[in-house]
Amino acid sequence: MQSFFSHGVMPVALLATALSLGACKPAEPPAAPVAAAPPQIKDMGTVLAESLSADWRPLDPENTLYMDLEKGRVIIDMAPAFAPNHVANIKALVREGYFDGLSIMRTQENYVVQWGDADGRRAIKAAARNLPPEFAVTPPADLPFTKLDSVDGYAAEVGFSGGFPMGRDPKAGLAWLAHCYSMVGVGRDTAPDSGGGTELYAVIGHAPRQLDRNVTLFGRVVRGMEFFTTLPRGTGPLGFYEQPSERVPVKSIKVAADVPESERVRLEVMRTDTPTFSALVDSRRHRQEEWFQYDPGHVELCNVPIPVRDAPAAAQ
Amino acid sequence: MQSFFSHGVMPVALLATALSLGACKPAEPPAAPVAAAPPQIKDMGTVLAESLSADWRPLDPENTLYMDLEKGRVIIDMAPAFAPNHVANIKALVREGYFDGLSIMRTQENYVVQWGDADGRRAIKAAARNLPPEFAVTPPADLPFTKLDSVDGYAAEVGFSGGFPMGRDPKAGLAWLAHCYSMVGVGRDTAPDSGGGTELYAVIGHAPRQLDRNVTLFGRVVRGMEFFTTLPRGTGPLGFYEQPSERVPVKSIKVAADVPESERVRLEVMRTDTPTFSALVDSRRHRQEEWFQYDPGHVELCNVPIPVRDAPAAAQ
Repeated sequence: MQSFFSHGVMPVALLATALSLGACKPAEPPAAPVAAAPPQIKDMGTVLAESLSADWRPLDPENTLYMDLEKGRVIIDMAPAFAPNHVANIKALVREGYFDGLSIMRTQENYVVQWGDADGRRAIKAAARNLPPEFAVTPPADLPFTKLDSVDGYAAEVGFSGGFPMGRDPKAGLAWLAHCYSMVGVGRDTAPDSGGGTELYAVIGHAPRQLDRNVTLFGRVVRGMEFFTTLPRGTGPLGFYEQPSERVPVKSIKVAADVPESERVRLEVMRTDTPTFSALVDSRRHRQEEWFQYDPGHVELCNVPIPVRDAPAAAQ
Repeated sequence: MQSFFSHGVMPVALLATALSLGACKPAEPPAAPVAAAPPQIKDMGTVLAESLSADWRPLDPENTLYMDLEKGRVIIDMAPAFAPNHVANIKALVREGYFDGLSIMRTQENYVVQWGDADGRRAIKAAARNLPPEFAVTPPADLPFTKLDSVDGYAAEVGFSGGFPMGRDPKAGLAWLAHCYSMVGVGRDTAPDSGGGTELYAVIGHAPRQLDRNVTLFGRVVRGMEFFTTLPRGTGPLGFYEQPSERVPVKSIKVAADVPESERVRLEVMRTDTPTFSALVDSRRHRQEEWFQYDPGHVELCNVPIPVRDAPAAAQ
C-alpha cells in the first residue's frame, strides 16, 4: 500500500478539481494534469471499503504454500495456469519434505532472495529435478485476462489474471507472469531446462522485467514479504552468503491443504476481473487524495497493488 | 547490479545469434527476440571493464551527504540543478547539526524510509523550515540530458542528467527527477510548500513514479542502501514505528566537504552523457549474457543502473 509522506492520516477522496497546484511561486510553473480524471474516480480506500464479498477470492489451499522461517511465515499464492508443470512439481517437492531444513542462501539488494539446497546434498524422492521451461505458455482458453490500458515496453499487452500481473502476446498466443515485486520463480542455470523447482526465488526490489520470458514464475508472496526484504544482504557475488553460517534456515514449506484447517491462514486476494478491481486501477491511475498536486494519469503494471486481506470473520 | 540466478559466474558476452531458445518441448513455443540486437552490443561487465577514467565523475564533496547510522554510512549524491533551494537549505540544516541525534521514524515495506524530528522538538537556527516546492523546475539552459529511447507512461521524455534519472516535458519546459529506487526526497504535508528539508525520505522499493512532480526530490543514495532496506518495517499506519524505542537513531548527517579529506569516501558515479553510458544502456536493453533466452529489447528508466565505484587508487 502506498500513501503519504506526512504524519497525517489519509484524507477522504476529493474531487478531481481539487488537484490543482496551490500556492506556488512563479518560478515553479503549475503542473497541469496530463489527463483530466473522470469525476466518478474514487480513491483506493473508498474502493476497498465499498468492495463486496464477491470481489475477493479465498486462497486455494491446494495452491498455497506456507514457508516458515524462524522469524515468521511467508505465504505464496501459486498460479498453476501459468506454470502447471512447475506448480505440480513444487508441490511434490514440498510434500516429500524437500525444503524442510534447507536455507535461503542468497539475498541480493534490490533484486532477489533465493532458497534451496545450498550444499547440493538433499536427495529427491519422487519429484523431478529438472523440467522443460514454462517461461511463456499457451494459456488455457478460459484464462481470464483484464487488460491494463497502460503503455508497457516489455510486453505487447499487460494486465492481470486471477490476481497475478502478466504480459501477453496475442499474435504469438503466449502469456506469462510479470516480474513485479513479490513474484516468485524457479531458479535455473544457463540451460533453459536446468530448473525444476528445487531452487526458488522471490523479487524483493524494483521489478526486473527483463527476466520476463526468461525464467519460470509460478506465484506471488501475498503475506510476509518483510521476512525476505529485511534479510541481511549477502556479501558474495550476486548476493550469495559467503559463509554457511550466514544462511537463513527454512524451517519448512508446506502446502496449505496439508495443514489442519484450524491452523490455516485465511487470506483473500482481490479478484482482478471485476468492476471493483477496475475502479482500483483507476484510483491508482488518477490519484484523488488531497496530497497529490499532479495527476500522474498513468499507472504502470507493477505499481498496481493487488490487495490481500484477512478473510472477514463471517467467511471463516 | 542484476545478474543470474544460478551459482555460476557470469559468462562472457555472446553473439546475439546465441540468444535462441535451446532444447524446448513443442508445448513451449520458442520465444523470438522482439528486436535483433545489433552485433556490437556489449554486456555490462565488458562496458564497465572498458570504461575510461573520463567516463566517471568523482562525487562533489559540497553536494554529498554522509548519513551515519549505528550500522553504517549512507552516502547521498545531491542534485542541485533540480532542487537548488532545497539542496541549499538541507546543507544549511546539516551544517547547524539539525539531524544529529534525530531518527528514522518510518519504514514502509516496498515504499520509503523517512527520517527527521519525530517528536517535533528540534529547533532550527538559520535554515528555513518550509520552502516553495521544487517538484518540477525550469532547468538551467546548460543542463545535460541524455534521452532514454524507451516508452514511458509517466513522462513525455525520460533520461538522465548528471547521474540522475529524470523526466521532462519539453513543451512545458520542465524537468524533474524520477522516483526510482534509491532516490531521496523532501517529505511534506498536504500543502505543497509544507516541506523544506527537515523531513527526508528514500525510496526502498519498486519505483513509485506516481510521486514524480508531487514532491521534491534532491538526490540519490549511492552507497549504503542496505542500511535502509533491511530496517524493521514499522507496524503503524504508513509504516511509522509505533513506539519511540523502535525508531532508528541517526547519529549524524554531514556534508562531505566538512569532513577532513582523509576521512572522505572516494566514490565515482558513471557520467550519463558519454558513449560509455549509452553502451551501458544498450547492454541492459539487449541482454547479451548467455543465460538470457529472450532479448527484452527494452529497458525501463528505473531499470537502468547508474554505476558507482570506489575511485581507483590513482585518482585518490
